[in-house]
Amino acid sequence: MSATDRHTLDEFDVIKRCFRPLAEKEPGAFALKDDAAVLPAQSGYDLVMTMDTAVAGVHFLLNDPPGSVAAKVLGVNLSDLAAMGAAPYVYTLSVALNRDEEISWLESFANALKHEQETHGISLVGGDTVRTPGPTSLTINATGLVPSGEALKRSGANVGDSIYVSGVIGEGALGLLALQGELSGIDEDVASRCIDKYRFPKPRLSLGKRLRGIATAAIDISDGLLQDLGHICETSGVGAKLELSQIPLPTRANSTLVHRALNGGDDYELVFTTSESDDRVVQQAIKGCDVECQRIGTIVEGAAVMVYDNGDALKDMTVSAGYNHFSS
Amino acid sequence: MSATDRHTLDEFDVIKRCFRPLAEKEPGAFALKDDAAVLPAQSGYDLVMTMDTAVAGVHFLLNDPPGSVAAKVLGVNLSDLAAMGAAPYVYTLSVALNRDEEISWLESFANALKHEQETHGISLVGGDTVRTPGPTSLTINATGLVPSGEALKRSGANVGDSIYVSGVIGEGALGLLALQGELSGIDEDVASRCIDKYRFPKPRLSLGKRLRGIATAAIDISDGLLQDLGHICETSGVGAKLELSQIPLPTRANSTLVHRALNGGDDYELVFTTSESDDRVVQQAIKGCDVECQRIGTIVEGAAVMVYDNGDALKDMTVSAGYNHFSS
Repeated sequence: MSATDRHTLDEFDVIKRCFRPLAEKEPGAFALKDDAAVLPAQSGYDLVMTMDTAVAGVHFLLNDPPGSVAAKVLGVNLSDLAAMGAAPYVYTLSVALNRDEEISWLESFANALKHEQETHGISLVGGDTVRTPGPTSLTINATGLVPSGEALKRSGANVGDSIYVSGVIGEGALGLLALQGELSGIDEDVASRCIDKYRFPKPRLSLGKRLRGIATAAIDISDGLLQDLGHICETSGVGAKLELSQIPLPTRANSTLVHRALNGGDDYELVFTTSESDDRVVQQAIKGCDVECQRIGTIVEGAAVMVYDNGDALKDMTVSAGYNHFSS
Repeated sequence: MSATDRHTLDEFDVIKRCFRPLAEKEPGAFALKDDAAVLPAQSGYDLVMTMDTAVAGVHFLLNDPPGSVAAKVLGVNLSDLAAMGAAPYVYTLSVALNRDEEISWLESFANALKHEQETHGISLVGGDTVRTPGPTSLTINATGLVPSGEALKRSGANVGDSIYVSGVIGEGALGLLALQGELSGIDEDVASRCIDKYRFPKPRLSLGKRLRGIATAAIDISDGLLQDLGHICETSGVGAKLELSQIPLPTRANSTLVHRALNGGDDYELVFTTSESDDRVVQQAIKGCDVECQRIGTIVEGAAVMVYDNGDALKDMTVSAGYNHFSS
């Protein structure tokens, strides 16, 4: 039976060849040979659990580099863990592989996933593999650990808190535009950085851990800065006032791109609030993590996220509905 | 916006209307409003984690009763927990809904799932909802709890151990045959019981818990008794000798149906081994659970599962490859 024999290759062989190497470091995975994984209780830690599904043709393309697919499908889950201040622990993976797709795709994907999990210190402990007549779909359930009671939530922002973001906002959205051939008028190296960010999201795990005890609320930017900050505001019962000039953007070439950058998804940066008003204290707390953070505004009374430019509220910069899974 | 408006209904509204009611009993689910669930460490317990995916048209039909779909998709995961001796704790659910499917299907499914989770004492804590151009697919990651070190595994069977099964073997497989109009020559009430078992698997959770400390190995029957017992044998490095007359079957009308019953999937009964040779001790240990268990054979040296009828080994009753996800 060849490695790419797509009709007769059985599930047990696929598990053995593609996925067992990803479970070798966690004894409780039983080399994926039992009904379920058994994981010892981690005394003093809360579990943080999240799940995301990526569908070929909707969330990724099968001709994307396998490393990019692996980085995205694991990365979006790790980004949720980062937003809660959790450290990666274990994950399960379900692959529904299109029935006409070669098994070799799964092998390339699994190899890339192994690299990703080693980068982030997380281990596969179980899952499922099935054939589907539909597009290949990948679902990951990621579990992280956070010291008991220290998880970051969306609900703790208070009026007067400072608002910070990590990294550059909008690179993911502009990267997608560039890949669609719809991005013009910006430097080639900026476009190339945006494409890289879109393809290889960087879950801000080291930042998330440092934000324990200093952030009053946090969320990762998956649907766009304004919408995701809107979730913090909604859950916390507050509003937000942002200064456009303070928001790190890949380009300010024209207002359409700025609008897109603030409302587009796929950044996987963190936006967080803190009651600390001294920027030096915040910078000291997050020192040593792999990304810079910038103060972009203040939590205010109300229920809206407003963007100001030189004192004027920009009416077209309202909280957008962002990326709506159900209309795609 | 009507409840069945399939193009504009957004993810947040679906979560609120369909899934939030399923998460109301677990405070760490944050009413599905945060990036991830936060679950307190359960001191003295190990976590047991499993994941299964069901694809419409492959593992269930969209015109199956929604209660049956809910019972199957949650039940197959709970059955894995039962096989490990674990008690249900929490689960996450990813729904990839076909883009032409009405949201009303999701509502019916979610209502049925609420009934199932209340029956089994498990709570939804998170997940994902996306649209797909392919068939509707449902993935559940279920987490259970077992006292530290007491999880049942496949690997502990020893030569001389007794082999037991719960319930009746083959009802699931014959139920599927009946639904396909391919089951004849058996009583109508038997066929009806088989269909019911196929549609509404009964995860043997109360049995699994009672088997802690008495079973040396256990597995749930999802691929067929012979194949799943084969997994115990392979992992434990032993063989098995079964007595056909001792195996509880829905019918012995003809050898084709007997063969199908022993090799068919979808039973979700447990097969387990024990070093206890006195049946009365075993029956006392499992007393009070919702299913009867029967001794069907003995663990022997070797690597094969053999079925004997009046002292003769039945050569056609070999370990079958069972249900192979990747050939369907």
